[in-house]
Amino acid sequence: METPTNVTIKGILGMLMANLDYENKKRVISLGMGDPTAFSCFTTTSVAEDAVVDALHSQKFNGYSPTVGLPQTRKAISDYLSINLPYKLSPDDVYITAGCTQAIEVAISILAGPNANILVPRPGFPIYELCAAFRNVEIRHYDLQPENNWEVDIDSIDSLADQNTMAIVIINPGNPCGNVYSYQHLKKIVETAKKHKIVVIADEVYGHLAFGQNPFVPMGVFGSMVPVLTLGSLSKRWIVPGWRLGWFVTTDPNGMFKNAKTVERLKKYFDICGGPATFIQAAVPRILKETSDTFFTRTLDILRHSSDLCIKKIKDIPCLTCPTKPQGSMAMMVKLNVSLLKDINDDVDFCFKLAKQESVILLPGLTVGLKNWVRITFAAEPSLLEEALERIKSFSHSHSYDTNGSHFDS
Amino acid sequence: METPTNVTIKGILGMLMANLDYENKKRVISLGMGDPTAFSCFTTTSVAEDAVVDALHSQKFNGYSPTVGLPQTRKAISDYLSINLPYKLSPDDVYITAGCTQAIEVAISILAGPNANILVPRPGFPIYELCAAFRNVEIRHYDLQPENNWEVDIDSIDSLADQNTMAIVIINPGNPCGNVYSYQHLKKIVETAKKHKIVVIADEVYGHLAFGQNPFVPMGVFGSMVPVLTLGSLSKRWIVPGWRLGWFVTTDPNGMFKNAKTVERLKKYFDICGGPATFIQAAVPRILKETSDTFFTRTLDILRHSSDLCIKKIKDIPCLTCPTKPQGSMAMMVKLNVSLLKDINDDVDFCFKLAKQESVILLPGLTVGLKNWVRITFAAEPSLLEEALERIKSFSHSHSYDTNGSHFDS
Ligand SMILES: Cc1ncc(COP(=O)(O)O)c(C=O)c1O
Ligand SMILES: Cc1ncc(COP(=O)(O)O)c(C=O)c1O
Repeated sequence: METPTNVTIKGILGMLMANLDYENKKRVISLGMGDPTAFSCFTTTSVAEDAVVDALHSQKFNGYSPTVGLPQTRKAISDYLSINLPYKLSPDDVYITAGCTQAIEVAISILAGPNANILVPRPGFPIYELCAAFRNVEIRHYDLQPENNWEVDIDSIDSLADQNTMAIVIINPGNPCGNVYSYQHLKKIVETAKKHKIVVIADEVYGHLAFGQNPFVPMGVFGSMVPVLTLGSLSKRWIVPGWRLGWFVTTDPNGMFKNAKTVERLKKYFDICGGPATFIQAAVPRILKETSDTFFTRTLDILRHSSDLCIKKIKDIPCLTCPTKPQGSMAMMVKLNVSLLKDINDDVDFCFKLAKQESVILLPGLTVGLKNWVRITFAAEPSLLEEALERIKSFSHSHSYDTNGSHFDS
Repeated sequence: METPTNVTIKGILGMLMANLDYENKKRVISLGMGDPTAFSCFTTTSVAEDAVVDALHSQKFNGYSPTVGLPQTRKAISDYLSINLPYKLSPDDVYITAGCTQAIEVAISILAGPNANILVPRPGFPIYELCAAFRNVEIRHYDLQPENNWEVDIDSIDSLADQNTMAIVIINPGNPCGNVYSYQHLKKIVETAKKHKIVVIADEVYGHLAFGQNPFVPMGVFGSMVPVLTLGSLSKRWIVPGWRLGWFVTTDPNGMFKNAKTVERLKKYFDICGGPATFIQAAVPRILKETSDTFFTRTLDILRHSSDLCIKKIKDIPCLTCPTKPQGSMAMMVKLNVSLLKDINDDVDFCFKLAKQESVILLPGLTVGLKNWVRITFAAEPSLLEEALERIKSFSHSHSYDTNGSHFDS
């Protein structure tokens, strides 16, 4: 098996799909990727669609935008993010990107330099590793603690950070763990970052997708303590990952990061980036202003329901345990006890055999840095999720030591 | 003045715009940027707009596309490009990018390595310099010859290339020169590239925008002699630069460049790129298939007419000469003879004073690597172009030695 740096989520999901057995006539259910648009219960609001169509039809937005983004789009996003901050962002703090993916790329490229390293969570989001590899930035993993709401192991930060550490990446609400950190925990992270004089990269692509006990607190709240780079997009909250509309934001009211030289370098960097379509950018002010709370609430209700369903169903599957109930995002990590299974070597083997036997796709934990775990994306049609978990149950049963060979055995 | 590496076209145009004198009540005419959408005679075809709206309305393309692009989009572009090639491209040769800008970024990043250098034309397109600076690739300039249809100085290639040279960039049809190279000249370039064992990066963002004597010959025609990386986009031919839909194509039928390892690396690189919106990608097959020849011909007619107009008008301005009539793209280079002007130091001074006095924006040649030249974008409303050139004439007159001080003198 390759090491995680060489694996991408899409790569391994492609291999799993290739391993499906269409002979078994079962409908394929993928809980592998974070793209809810595959399920009809996750459809964007007509407000968003109309805003884009109108911007296109106006024929005013077929030309180039400034490479950092249209002024009205930057303004709309700075207003949107400022609602939840103790200070007001300026439109100049906002740079428009082709999805949160490009915002990650910009953050890492801007922080790159000889011997630079950044701290990323384990389990985490593999794009950070991949991007760092291309930009010659060293990756150091800090652990998230499964038994402790997937909180950051703060002590491990102290032992990892050195004078070449540029930043710590915090994904909140979290993928793959479904964590939503409390104000207190975020504050502790920030104090540690401050001690080590490092920037916080706040990946908030799942911003506001919190349906549990903890409310979503944007990291930018602590922007006056340490410079925070806030990354986000329309992808998840508006369920339009294919629109590729994201942002890179300096939530840094004291200008600790955004000095004249860095801003100059950032602006130049954007000159070589592709960026998102001008007419989609032009639609953003209306999208942010006119999307109804009902739309957001409905998404959260489905996510809460479907994650609860997962938790309940997993309780019936002896080889799987979920130490922490997810409180946000669209995914959760589930621990696999291979010692209960007679012919499964590890998480990768589990996922490949599951795909073949039951046409259910889960992501092997190895892909996100945690061997013998699996990631379940619960942003799925509840009825399909239920069906998938039934199949996982029967799969696990058929591979368990304590059962007599079932007809599923191969 | 900064060196060209530190100047971007958008940067200098912004400074020129800031230098306008709104007191003079003259309508601002910008012939500085290559964005024809600012002029109402350059409007995209309704075919393109409809195809995008329909793709969006179908709600089938709100999700992620594969990071290399939708299969049907890759297929459509490989078919489109194959029409003009002696061999057939495969959809796998095509990678979808956020405009030709991102295709440039991909090409340079993929070729980057310790001590790597690439050869770029002078005058050229500054994004190459900027991108190479971010990726630690050395830039070496070869000259285009103004008196010789802006052809490549082949001998200079021999003295510039060494074992660390990865590629030569050829922009054809050319920005900023308006050149369209003959088959014979392209063949000579390819032979030289072959001799030095370097890849050709063929920037064909202006592909098919040839309205002069030479027809457009895609560099991929020579793909079996040297590996060619063909870069392009919808931006210019379809007049939708804001849609950010481009392509990076390995026109390399013998697989000299695209071995398994390179393809693997390329695919991974696309995982960290933002890429264009899925629904715009989905519209591409219809756009490429259904756009009428009338639309293309109309654009070429306007460009031919407006470039002729420029040439004619420039003949009346003593301090400006155009050694070579443009045959394609949307821009031309015009030589400035400052010795005829009493109070103009150079091209930058000329453009700044022209902006202030006449509200006409031209791009200083320094920005594209040629001091004491100016770039004129002729993709403009002919009546405005005429008016702009009248103003340039009167400006030049007022600053000439051989005139008595006019009331324009400051
Ligand atoms: C943690 C995290 N960051 C970034 C991204 C990329 O977001 P986008 O689709 O906006 O590029 C994802 C997508 O799943 C993600 O899970
Ligand atoms: C020579 C050249 N290459 C690339 C580009 C960028 O093209 P796009 O707008 O598709 O990103 C331009 C734009 O003007 C150009 O002139």
